Amino acid sequence: MEGQNQSKEAMPRPLDALNESRGKQVMVELKNGKQFVGKLIAFDIHINTVLEDAQELEAGEVKRNIGKVFIRGDTIVIISPSA
Amino acid sequence: MEGQNQSKEAMPRPLDALNESRGKQVMVELKNGKQFVGKLIAFDIHINTVLEDAQELEAGEVKRNIGKVFIRGDTIVIISPSA
Amino acid sequence: MEGQNQSKEAMPRPLDALNESRGKQVMVELKNGKQFVGKLIAFDIHINTVLEDAQELEAGEVKRNIGKVFIRGDTIVIISPSA
Amino acid sequence: MEGQNQSKEAMPRPLDALNESRGKQVMVELKNGKQFVGKLIAFDIHINTVLEDAQELEAGEVKRNIGKVFIRGDTIVIISPSA
Amino acid sequence: MEGQNQSKEAMPRPLDALNESRGKQVMVELKNGKQFVGKLIAFDIHINTVLEDAQELEAGEVKRNIGKVFIRGDTIVIISPSA
Amino acid sequence: MEGQNQSKEAMPRPLDALNESRGKQVMVELKNGKQFVGKLIAFDIHINTVLEDAQELEAGEVKRNIGKVFIRGDTIVIISPSA
Amino acid sequence: MEGQNQSKEAMPRPLDALNESRGKQVMVELKNGKQFVGKLIAFDIHINTVLEDAQELEAGEVKRNIGKVFIRGDTIVIISPSA
Repeated sequence: MEGQNQSKEAMPRPLDALNESRGKQVMVELKNGKQFVGKLIAFDIHINTVLEDAQELEAGEVKRNIGKVFIRGDTIVIISPSA
Repeated sequence: MEGQNQSKEAMPRPLDALNESRGKQVMVELKNGKQFVGKLIAFDIHINTVLEDAQELEAGEVKRNIGKVFIRGDTIVIISPSA
Repeated sequence: MEGQNQSKEAMPRPLDALNESRGKQVMVELKNGKQFVGKLIAFDIHINTVLEDAQELEAGEVKRNIGKVFIRGDTIVIISPSA
Repeated sequence: MEGQNQSKEAMPRPLDALNESRGKQVMVELKNGKQFVGKLIAFDIHINTVLEDAQELEAGEVKRNIGKVFIRGDTIVIISPSA
Repeated sequence: MEGQNQSKEAMPRPLDALNESRGKQVMVELKNGKQFVGKLIAFDIHINTVLEDAQELEAGEVKRNIGKVFIRGDTIVIISPSA
Repeated sequence: MEGQNQSKEAMPRPLDALNESRGKQVMVELKNGKQFVGKLIAFDIHINTVLEDAQELEAGEVKRNIGKVFIRGDTIVIISPSA
Repeated sequence: MEGQNQSKEAMPRPLDALNESRGKQVMVELKNGKQFVGKLIAFDIHINTVLEDAQELEAGEVKRNIGKVFIRGDTIVIISPSA
């Protein structure tokens, strides 16, 4: 049962990986195609997410500054560190 | 296990961040593209949200005044302070 | 932890706010774009909702009278007092 | 806390209101736009619903008779008494 | 509280009604518009359903024979006895 | 209460029926219209499914070989033995 | 009850199968049609997934490098080893 042993040993959890981006700049893409960049300050198990100093992007360009923003988790597709 | 320690220490929760906007003007964007601005007076873990003195916006313009409005949480994309 | 204290004190719940409209005229907007007005006589935690003396509206005009109507909660976007 | 007291006293539940239509003719509208009329013989908390002597309607006209029909609750928008 | 009494007495459950079709020919309509007819041999509380000697229909005509088929419950709109 | 007795006796469960296809060739159709054929090696209560020696089909033709594939259960419409 | 015995004996679980790809290159396809390839470093029961050294593909070509990426599980269709 190799799979299970691996699983009990060392499997990192996705939310721990996400936590490594806390306090850092991330890019969030939503199901409706919108993109936000900002500092990741909070998330929970539903992936409800709060960004600070956030900007909404359109085709890679800043569309507007929105400061702090709460994003409902079920609308999120991906979160990645923004370079 | 740096990620986990960070998590136990100081991770703010998204709903606490949202709570900082209680009693203040917020902008709520819905999955159907509608936007509401108003005073945030209540929300719950499903992000069911109640605004007071609310207005529905269309392309940034006030479309109508609707007073108090209950918004079902699963229709919400983002909530942000409105400047 | 100002946010948490506020939360424990005085945070009204969205369903209590909705309950203030019980027995009164409300407008319900659905995800499919339909609108119903009627007297709010019941709702539950899923926002399953029952209206009495209800009318379906189309572009602000009465399309038909439907008397009592049970609306499944997951189809609802907003509920607001109708003036 | 007027809202809460009202709630504990006398709030009828949507499923009790629906139950008043048991054994009677109802009209069921689905998310895909289909309409069924028939005698309401069963429903549960998911609003899974069974009609007897049911007919599918199209633009208010009978499209076909389907006898008994089980309707999955999550496809339902509204249920109302049919006159 | 007439509604509640009725409810405790005699309310048949939708899954019991569905069970009366076990071993018989049924027609299943899916959210994507597909239709299957076949012998209903199993279903569960999610309405996951298994048909035997099943056929996929298109515009009322047999499109193909598929033998046994497992249908995920959340894709189902209605199940009705097929005459 | 004939329905209930039948139910307690002998009702096969959909996942047991699906289990009869374990180790055999099946065809899986997804909500996005994609089709996969392969050997069914694992599934769970969410219908998360793993196929081995799998092929993606397009209009009945092999589009590509993908070896092992994990399919998220909520994207699945039907699973049937492939002849 | 052959099906049940098989089930208790030896049924591998989909997440164990997925775990065999941990630390290896996988391809993830999303409901919105996007494709990511990268090293699978974490997933959970919701299929929330984290890839490292990830690339977004478009029509089989690399569209952009995104480093680490958290993918919300409910947006995923399939995960397969990438050759």
